[in-house]
Amino acid sequence: MAKKSVLTPQSEDFPRWYQDVVAKAEMADNGPVRGTMVIRPYGYSIWERMQSEMDTRIKDAGAKNAYFPLFIPQSYLTKEADHVEGFAPELAVVTHGGGKELEEPIVVRPTSETVIGEYMAKWINSYRDLPLLLNQWANVVRWELRPRIFLRTSEFLWQEGHTAHATREDAAAYAHHIHREVYEDFMVNVLAMPVIRGRKTASERFAGAINTLALEAMMRDGKALQMGTSHELGQNFANAFGIKYLASSGTQEVCWTASWGTSTRMIGGLIMSHGDDAGLRIPPRLAPIQVLVMIVKDGDGVSEAAAAIVADLKAAGVRVELDDRTDTAFGRRAVDAELKGIPVRVEVGPRDVAEGKVTVARRIGGGKEPIAFESAAALVTRALDEDHQALYDEALAHRENNTVDVRTIGEAAEAAATGFARIPWATLGVAGEKELAASAITVRCLVRPDGEIPESDDEDGALAVVARAY
Amino acid sequence: MAKKSVLTPQSEDFPRWYQDVVAKAEMADNGPVRGTMVIRPYGYSIWERMQSEMDTRIKDAGAKNAYFPLFIPQSYLTKEADHVEGFAPELAVVTHGGGKELEEPIVVRPTSETVIGEYMAKWINSYRDLPLLLNQWANVVRWELRPRIFLRTSEFLWQEGHTAHATREDAAAYAHHIHREVYEDFMVNVLAMPVIRGRKTASERFAGAINTLALEAMMRDGKALQMGTSHELGQNFANAFGIKYLASSGTQEVCWTASWGTSTRMIGGLIMSHGDDAGLRIPPRLAPIQVLVMIVKDGDGVSEAAAAIVADLKAAGVRVELDDRTDTAFGRRAVDAELKGIPVRVEVGPRDVAEGKVTVARRIGGGKEPIAFESAAALVTRALDEDHQALYDEALAHRENNTVDVRTIGEAAEAAATGFARIPWATLGVAGEKELAASAITVRCLVRPDGEIPESDDEDGALAVVARAY
Repeated sequence: MAKKSVLTPQSEDFPRWYQDVVAKAEMADNGPVRGTMVIRPYGYSIWERMQSEMDTRIKDAGAKNAYFPLFIPQSYLTKEADHVEGFAPELAVVTHGGGKELEEPIVVRPTSETVIGEYMAKWINSYRDLPLLLNQWANVVRWELRPRIFLRTSEFLWQEGHTAHATREDAAAYAHHIHREVYEDFMVNVLAMPVIRGRKTASERFAGAINTLALEAMMRDGKALQMGTSHELGQNFANAFGIKYLASSGTQEVCWTASWGTSTRMIGGLIMSHGDDAGLRIPPRLAPIQVLVMIVKDGDGVSEAAAAIVADLKAAGVRVELDDRTDTAFGRRAVDAELKGIPVRVEVGPRDVAEGKVTVARRIGGGKEPIAFESAAALVTRALDEDHQALYDEALAHRENNTVDVRTIGEAAEAAATGFARIPWATLGVAGEKELAASAITVRCLVRPDGEIPESDDEDGALAVVARAY
Repeated sequence: MAKKSVLTPQSEDFPRWYQDVVAKAEMADNGPVRGTMVIRPYGYSIWERMQSEMDTRIKDAGAKNAYFPLFIPQSYLTKEADHVEGFAPELAVVTHGGGKELEEPIVVRPTSETVIGEYMAKWINSYRDLPLLLNQWANVVRWELRPRIFLRTSEFLWQEGHTAHATREDAAAYAHHIHREVYEDFMVNVLAMPVIRGRKTASERFAGAINTLALEAMMRDGKALQMGTSHELGQNFANAFGIKYLASSGTQEVCWTASWGTSTRMIGGLIMSHGDDAGLRIPPRLAPIQVLVMIVKDGDGVSEAAAAIVADLKAAGVRVELDDRTDTAFGRRAVDAELKGIPVRVEVGPRDVAEGKVTVARRIGGGKEPIAFESAAALVTRALDEDHQALYDEALAHRENNTVDVRTIGEAAEAAATGFARIPWATLGVAGEKELAASAITVRCLVRPDGEIPESDDEDGALAVVARAY
């Protein structure tokens, strides 16, 4: 009899596999208001690790955290024409407060460009105040008609950076710096996810931006997921909110602003990049629990041996947890650890202890081996290093194997059924982009043949990466 | 000519001093929607340090972070009768989403007992799932008619813990544990604030609680500020939301729940406990910048000397920042550091370097002294230790000097004009409590004569601490 799967296999129904794993790994639940989510402790511990790794990089980039209000006067949204047009259909509106109808309706922030613009204008006086580099960790609300946990939810958690600069060049350079040194670095070196860095076409740009840089990853079903964006906003918001500075020359100048964001959506990307039919696979550098030391069965010296390994690993800087719930069947606990994608399990039972060994099971590459007690900590540390790279390599190979260069729109549409297609933007163009959109295929971004980012949409040789997307 | 104060003196107008220091130390601004606030980078860096210290203690107490939705169906609020009655006047209500009027209005969470109750009921099956110990860091909204930054704002940031237990005793013990080992420990050992631990009278209890424990601090104007609360909710929410468990005996039992919270209000308490006429005084263990190394004037070897001190202090684990903005007058930078309450300044100028010295200025006790370059790091480290205690001692002495034991309601009212009064609860009683309320004086909490917490309101010998309060 075949072993019954805990999850719907990916090959059978990928969306159902995703739903299954989100529920069974205890990542999140649907909230009571349609489109909202409850992030459960295990899911939230992953988000906390993401925040911590990102926050360090954001601070290294010179930005400072601040907090702006959840509620924005409706009138602010209308100050930048493209912006309000982009967000109007997604707004949640508060009409009553403190038992009374409000004189002016209030919008629950879908993003904070407008309210932060208002305060930048107050805080910036002269060139000495520039650049002003702000970031905020917050919840935002965008009404979602077809919600899916982590990927599209009416409320989500994110960081949004907002910066003001003296020149267009400075603003562009900072947006690129965040894009590469903060976002890409985090995605590659912590999430073990290869990402394509490119620029959005005009039709995919952020509402109010003059340029949007994106990072796109391929999921295991061949679809794309946008992992983060960094926008040059030109002087659109600076003009709308009066963000000006006195230049050293004594003239009054308008600032150039930028904004950049990543969200709990990345958790969805992580799940769909690395997960397999047994559950999640959490990259070791991200994992809140890198190693689970499991007591298989109580017995002579088992607790002591397990405690010693936990202590050794802690001393080596490993995030380790002890599972001593021997009143639950070992098999069930092992399946749970697989579902949760804990990179390494160290299993300790009476027989192991008698033989001076433990069993090390690796989630990422698979496999289980007995190992001498004294060597366990060193092996585990090495495994965590290797497995980061192994996950990255596997995701990269998957993307490369499912990306093709094509020369016609028809070929692009065909390739996008299972992966990414690269097609010269000169061949595709705005008309081709519209044609593909009818089959729910979008231009994820424009890239140069060498993988760098084109300076403009119509740069010679620019390639469009097209795909179906989450 | 007398030196012009940067701030309104506390003795002249305490509320205006508070407003001044919040603005001039760049802690926060009023938000555009009445009652909301913008927490500026310096204010937010203090909140981040609070979060980090609290979060460690919360995790040590076994609770796990999670995230529940901002939006709560209005029907949830009405499930617990006292709860909805308590919060109805303060709710913000979303009536439109995604461009349409909603079928059921949505409430922006004023606190999350109800929605978390719903999920506890889903997640708890048997006694093995208990205790369930959750915490969330989030924003909440309570419509505020007389807002004051940090103290009463329509939106504020907080942590709210929510726990479910098998027995009343367990729930009570955990509420007390948080109250003492998390909250009081943090306030005393990080914020350097003495706090009175007591229980609220029936009229001051949380809406839906059977017992509310509070921590009360005295501000420098003699008024009280509630710094945090921990509630026993009995079975009120468990009954309303069906939070039940299968006992080991095989019977179905109703859980006992607790909740506990602290908020950005603590920042207001911190400011009003320690601040003086020159600005904030941030306790060293909390301070985001413990030491500011200031280049007075560029000159031979000054940058190198300053860099060496920064490196020494960093190596000693001190949170240190370099101020090399020599294009701004030194006096102005020093006033700014005083306003921001940075505990220690190390000033380095050409003359100091020539003499092999630096000047160490201490914000908390005051005073400035030249010190040999080699001894600077050790002195600074010692100063940070001493000054935590000095701040605590000063705040404690202030409270003791402004607290009197009284025997009549008239005396209590008189004493509460300038500080705290302690009066036997048997003397005051519910009628006396009501009488004092007419003069805006409240019972902050009930305590035993030895400072411990009474088991019930009518415990023999219980004392009421009465005061005006923020």
